[in-house]
Order: sequence, then C-alpha cells, then structure tokens
Amino acid sequence: MLLATDCHIGFLEKDLIRGQDSFKTFEEVLKQAVEYDVDFILLGGDLFHANKPSRTTLYKTSSLLRKYCMGDRPSRIEFLGDQSENIRYPDVPVANFEDPNFKISYPVFSVHGNHDDPTGESNLSAIDIPGICGLLNHFGKVSSVDDIEIRPLLLRKGQTKLALYGLGSVRDERLCKTYMEGKVKMTKPNDGPESWFNLFVIHQNRYSRGSTSYIEEDFLDDFLDLVVWGHEHECLIDPVDSPSGKKFKVTQPGSSVATSLISGESRPKHIGLLKIHKKEFKLKKIPLKTVRPLFFEKVVLSQTNLNPGSEDALTEFLKEKVESILQHAQIDNGMRPLVRLKVDKSGGYGDLIPHKFGQNFVDRVANPKDILRFDKSETDADQSHPPVRSGIDGLRLENVINELCKESDERLQLKVLPKDGLEKALKSFVNNEQKGSIKNFVEQEIKKFVEVRVAEAQN
Amino acid sequence: MLLATDCHIGFLEKDLIRGQDSFKTFEEVLKQAVEYDVDFILLGGDLFHANKPSRTTLYKTSSLLRKYCMGDRPSRIEFLGDQSENIRYPDVPVANFEDPNFKISYPVFSVHGNHDDPTGESNLSAIDIPGICGLLNHFGKVSSVDDIEIRPLLLRKGQTKLALYGLGSVRDERLCKTYMEGKVKMTKPNDGPESWFNLFVIHQNRYSRGSTSYIEEDFLDDFLDLVVWGHEHECLIDPVDSPSGKKFKVTQPGSSVATSLISGESRPKHIGLLKIHKKEFKLKKIPLKTVRPLFFEKVVLSQTNLNPGSEDALTEFLKEKVESILQHAQIDNGMRPLVRLKVDKSGGYGDLIPHKFGQNFVDRVANPKDILRFDKSETDADQSHPPVRSGIDGLRLENVINELCKESDERLQLKVLPKDGLEKALKSFVNNEQKGSIKNFVEQEIKKFVEVRVAEAQN
Repeated sequence: MLLATDCHIGFLEKDLIRGQDSFKTFEEVLKQAVEYDVDFILLGGDLFHANKPSRTTLYKTSSLLRKYCMGDRPSRIEFLGDQSENIRYPDVPVANFEDPNFKISYPVFSVHGNHDDPTGESNLSAIDIPGICGLLNHFGKVSSVDDIEIRPLLLRKGQTKLALYGLGSVRDERLCKTYMEGKVKMTKPNDGPESWFNLFVIHQNRYSRGSTSYIEEDFLDDFLDLVVWGHEHECLIDPVDSPSGKKFKVTQPGSSVATSLISGESRPKHIGLLKIHKKEFKLKKIPLKTVRPLFFEKVVLSQTNLNPGSEDALTEFLKEKVESILQHAQIDNGMRPLVRLKVDKSGGYGDLIPHKFGQNFVDRVANPKDILRFDKSETDADQSHPPVRSGIDGLRLENVINELCKESDERLQLKVLPKDGLEKALKSFVNNEQKGSIKNFVEQEIKKFVEVRVAEAQN
Repeated sequence: MLLATDCHIGFLEKDLIRGQDSFKTFEEVLKQAVEYDVDFILLGGDLFHANKPSRTTLYKTSSLLRKYCMGDRPSRIEFLGDQSENIRYPDVPVANFEDPNFKISYPVFSVHGNHDDPTGESNLSAIDIPGICGLLNHFGKVSSVDDIEIRPLLLRKGQTKLALYGLGSVRDERLCKTYMEGKVKMTKPNDGPESWFNLFVIHQNRYSRGSTSYIEEDFLDDFLDLVVWGHEHECLIDPVDSPSGKKFKVTQPGSSVATSLISGESRPKHIGLLKIHKKEFKLKKIPLKTVRPLFFEKVVLSQTNLNPGSEDALTEFLKEKVESILQHAQIDNGMRPLVRLKVDKSGGYGDLIPHKFGQNFVDRVANPKDILRFDKSETDADQSHPPVRSGIDGLRLENVINELCKESDERLQLKVLPKDGLEKALKSFVNNEQKGSIKNFVEQEIKKFVEVRVAEAQN
C-alpha cells in the first residue's frame, strides 16, 4: 500500500508562485500509487488544508482522484466482515471498491485531520464530499470523544490479513483525557490479533511543544504492529521502535507540502511504499520530486561581529547569508526555493522589514515577503512569550483563538487577526460569517475548549 | 426524458419545519425518473439554491444522485459526434454515462441557473462538484457573454435524433444585448435541423416585471421544436405556442419548491415526462406529491367594512381569513401548509406585526412568522416604490445590491441587508467575507453591472 499524509490540498492556492504546489504533489502521490500498482492508498488526515476547501480545490482533488484511482484494473483486496459501521454513509454502506457502480483500481482510505475535521450538525468533513461521490473512503470517525471504540477494517489479500484501525483527529487535550480514563478501546478481531497485521493510523500531536498536549505512544495498545502517525509535518518515515517500550513500530510520513517554514519541514519529503506479508512488513521510502525545496537556517546575531546599531550592515550580512544559501542550493526539480532565516536578535539588534528585505530576491525565492523571521532567544531578558499558566487560570483568549484558527481557514486567520485585535476578531468571526455552520463550529469549539480547561482545573 | 427545473436544493435548510422540503422533492423527482424508466433527466438550472451550497446540501444531493442515477440498467442513449466542447472537464472529456468507470442508469443533464452560476477565476459552478465526480453532466456554459455560440449535444435513440441545446444563466440585461447584436448563434447539425428534434433549455426571465429585463421568445431561433424554460417558478408546464409566432412550443416546468410566497408559486407543481419520436413530442404532466402546499390570497382592506382605526378588528378579520383557508384547504400529503395573505392596506389601514399575528397559527402553518405581507395599491398616493429611471441615472446602489444578492446566498441577504443599511452591507459583504472568490465575484458583478448600465446609457 502507499502511505502519505497531510497533503494539505489547497494550501496557499491563491499564491501566484506557490498556489499549485499542493495539487502537483498530490498528483505525484497518486501517480506513484499507479506506478507501483499498490493495493490501496492510506492517508493520515489533512487531505485538505481548509476546513471548507474552495470550490476549485474540491473540484481539482475530485478530478485527480477520478483520474488516477478509477480504472479497469480491479482492486485486489477484499473485506472480511461487515464494514458498515466504519464507512458509514447511510445510503452507501460499502467501500467504494465494493460498489458495483464504480470501477476503482486504487482505493483511497483516509482518516480526517484537524484541518478537515467534521463540523456542523451533520458532522461531515470536507473529505465526505469526494467520499459520498465514491472517490475515497473516509474512516476513523468517532461519534463521541468521551468514549471511543476503534473498530478495524478487516482486509485480506492472499495469506495476509490486515486489521486497519483509524482515528481521525480529536483535540489532543480531549483525547488525552479519554485515554487516561481508559475509555479508548480498540476492538480486536474475533480470532485474536495474532493472525492479523494490526495497523493504526492516527492524526495527533506526537510531541509536546511547550504548552500543547500530545498523545503519548505509551497510550496505544501493545498488540499493534505498526502505527502511521499523521499531523506531524516532519518526514520521519523510517519506522522506529516506540520509546514507550511497546512492540509496535512508528512511521511518520510527514506532510507532502510545507505549510510552515520551519526546520522540520526543510527535511526531504517522502511517501512510503508499505509491503505487508503476514506479520512482517517492509517500508520503502519514495522521495517526492515535486516538493518545493525549503532552506532553513538559524542565525544568532550576538555570535557575529555585527554592530547592533547598523541596519545597513545587518542587511548586508543577511543578504549574504541568503546568497550563500542560493548558491549552494541543490535543486533537482528546478523550482524556485523557499528560504527562511530565523534570526535571533538578542543583544540589542533591531528588526529589518522582511517585506523590504525580500525585494532583493523577488525573482529567486518563492517567499520573498517572509524570508526573515526575527525573534529573541529564551534567555533574553525581554521575553515576549511568558510561560502559559496551567489550569483554568491559563485560559487565555489568545489560546482559544489560536486553537480555533488552527482549525479554520488560514486565510481568515491571516486577514482578520492582526488587524483588529483578538477579541474583535472572534466577534467578527462569529457574527459576520456567512454560513451558520461556521458559527456553530466556532461555538462548539469554544464550548469544548472551555470544558476541557475547566475539567483540567478541577482535577 | 424527465423535465424538471429550479429544484433549489438547500433552500431554507436550517428551517426546522421546511428544511427538508427541497431534498424530499428532489428525491421525488429522481424516483419518478426511475419509476418511468426514462432515458435521461434534463434540469433547467438552479439545482442548488445557494451559489455556495452548504456541505450538507452538497453531500445529500450527491448521495441522492448516486442512489438513484447509478445502477445496472445501462443508459440507452448514445452520443453522435464529439461532445467534448460541451461537457468540458479537461481531464474527463466525456459524459458520465460514456465513462466506462461508472455505471449510470439515468444520466442527468443540467444547465446552471442564476443561483448556482459559475464564479471565481476557475469559473466553476457548484454543480461542477457532482459534475466532476461523475454524478451529472453540466452543459450550456459559455466562455464569453458577448459572443455566444450554442452547440448542441447530439443524441440518438432508435430512429429519434435529439439536438439538445442548453444555455446556462446569463444576466438578462447582458444576454438581451448580445441577442440584439445578433451575437447569439445556435449551431445546427451538419445534416440540417430538419431530421433532428431541436430542444433548447434556457434559464432566464421569460417575462418583464417592471424594471427587470427578460428574454423575448422572438429572440430565439425558429428551427427549434421545443423550448424548456427554467428560472420562472410558476408551473406552466403544458406546452404553448410561442406568442412570437415562431413555430416552437414552450414548456415552463416551474420550480419544485416554493422559494417565494407569491401567487405563481401556489399553483400545483409538476415535472414533465417528455416523449419524443422523430419530430413529434408528447409531454405528460406528473404532479409532485411532496411539495408543501401554499395558499395565497389577496385582501384589499378598502373593499371591506373594517374601521381603519381598529387594530383588533383587523386582526380578527385576518385571523378569520386564515382560518377559512385552513378549513377549506385540501392537503393530500399531510404537510403543514404555507399561507400568505397579501394585504392591501390602502385607505389608511395600519400594519399588524406579522410575527405576532403568526403566533395564532404556530402549530398549523409552516410559515407562522410571515403569513401577512402588507403593501399599498399602486394607485395609492404614497408610493413606496417610485418607478426606476432608465439609463445611467437609473443606476442605484439598491439595484446593484439587489442584483448581487439575488445571486448570492439568500441567508446573507436576509441577515445583512435590513440591519445595517445598503452601503454598509455592500462594504461588509466585500470586506468581511472569508473567501477571496466571493470578493472577486462581487467585484466582477459590480463591474459587469456598471458596464451594462453605462452601455445602455450611451446607446
């Protein structure tokens, strides 16, 4: 099978330079599935970047799925048992490759991520649109986050039996709590998990990042053979032993498009060709060729001889850095690269205007407006990010809004947040939006978020 | 074939009483197609009520199309000639029933209406989402409204050859101009139209309503045999001779859901079973059984003995009217009816508060909040609707906004317009929306609208 995750289709789709990146790479993923003639494609969530993908994004994605996943070559996998609980469109209780009205060559199975999670009264995800149209199979949806039962899709090909477990994105704090209460249960196949290859695909934080919650690998069941970890964008696809001491391995394919210009996203990106035979597996890394190269470098100004008072000298110094990166860059696919300098300005250095600085590289860098990002080291006296307090006192509107906006369209966030301040943004987000569902979504999310914080404070 | 139009799926979908109406009737339409085992379904536009249908609406519509239009019974029509120009998804240059990867029993052909017209840079309509997924065939899209060539889909079944012409909604003013300049051309089949049944489906105003433009039947080509007129919601499905003296007949199926509580929408609603044999056709009316009954009555207060000063007497009088309607109503499908009293208050009568009046009928009427609509007769001195001036002087922001809002989500219109006044509404519409495409759409529409007005003024 082919493993990929976090395709974030539609990311920056209006950007003249980068707008097509996510579509191209998703097409490359599907082409590889055809090239390697896989049995199916397993996606780890965040197929779409926006909770409400644009019409163009929905259209193009559906078009690509139709083009590459349908055809005369019949699917070679078969389902064992009743799958209707897992692939639960009321009028279509079968997977697309089982529906006699479609010819599916390469079935796609996908959990949803935090970007394309189900919302509104009908609890539908954006991926349910190609889903109901027979172009992919959405699984791993839970009806209640307080009490989760994960039932596997039971698949067979030849002598190999695969129990495919999936869990679409749930807010980390909430899922943590449910795990800690022992209320996440994985249903084992009737004849025991020993004769099955037990694969689990999950879309959650894998690591703590300061204040964020994450799912510890220790939470997961020991009978699993392999965990495919979505959500984390860094490509760490080579399977590793779990530090929890449990017997499963973990593969983290990483995103197929860089949505943040951070160190982790600058590593070469891959998808995985996973071959399973009975209880054994082999994972072959396939490098993605259409990914726009990202060069990331940290610069600590206090370790240079630069005079903090001279803006010109700082500009020259950073220009040379970028020049040097561009000159040494090895770019195989001919794409204009992304460049990010993370500049530690501790020691009294001033900011440059990133936009103005970028004018020097307009024709050579894909992100001229935001090459530079200034911050200060944590040891610096003037800490701009005070530590977040825990418990109910730690509930800050900023966090609420950050959480909300992570889930919603990034464009909205960029447009609304900086301009009018956080409180006004939330108000306008709730009042001025066009669809009741977004309003419901935001209200639900606030409610959930507050509930969790209150629960934490009480414990 | 089955003829239907203006299904307006998703209309008032959040309404607790009426929310499911549009879905139920669309399902009835599809069931009738299966019941009568038609060759295909022809829709005249406004399949969706909103330009951006909600996820639930897209999902449910796709689900219904998948359920009823796919299956083992092969489609019996065949295409003659190259249809790729008319059904123009770049990667899928065929109709869904020609694609070997789908089993389509009842192909749907649809033009777009003014509610679901193509927008944005990619010029995609909401119906292109089920379209690209292989669930319907969108045709009648034009690339330029200044110079229109309408090429037919050439279909054959047995001895009957059908040239199916379609034109999706174009702003009436604009299309009028293009027609008057002789720049709307219908391409005739190579062997002449005589051996073909020439059917044209159009989605435009058919009648003038004061200031609105419309398409005169006299504009249309004389070689046509039948015109299916969408957009007009009144069911006038029995084919009539064109008053233009041209030889074609016109059928106006009317909407399958009442979106305005007006007289025309209160007529029984039908879809049509159209049988064509060579140059002959028969159209059988099929009454729709799931349509919520609408009772419409005009009341002229000055023709009563009511004392203009007594609010109580007026309330009693109108309550009795509604009671009388409800008592005499013949309702076959058991649905709570819609009732509208259009009250002419000329002669010094005051308004009642419709909302308060409706409390008397909460459990018996589907629209208790807006049973009453007060206005004054045109002969009344205090005319609230001055005649619209023509030409560039007639360009009023109100009209611009009305035009724009007609095309966009009705909910937006209802929510934004009355509250903040027109100018503010337009600003907020342009600034606060979440998707650039809406902004672009509005800007384009303003530009187009102004261009037409300027052109009119100059002529």
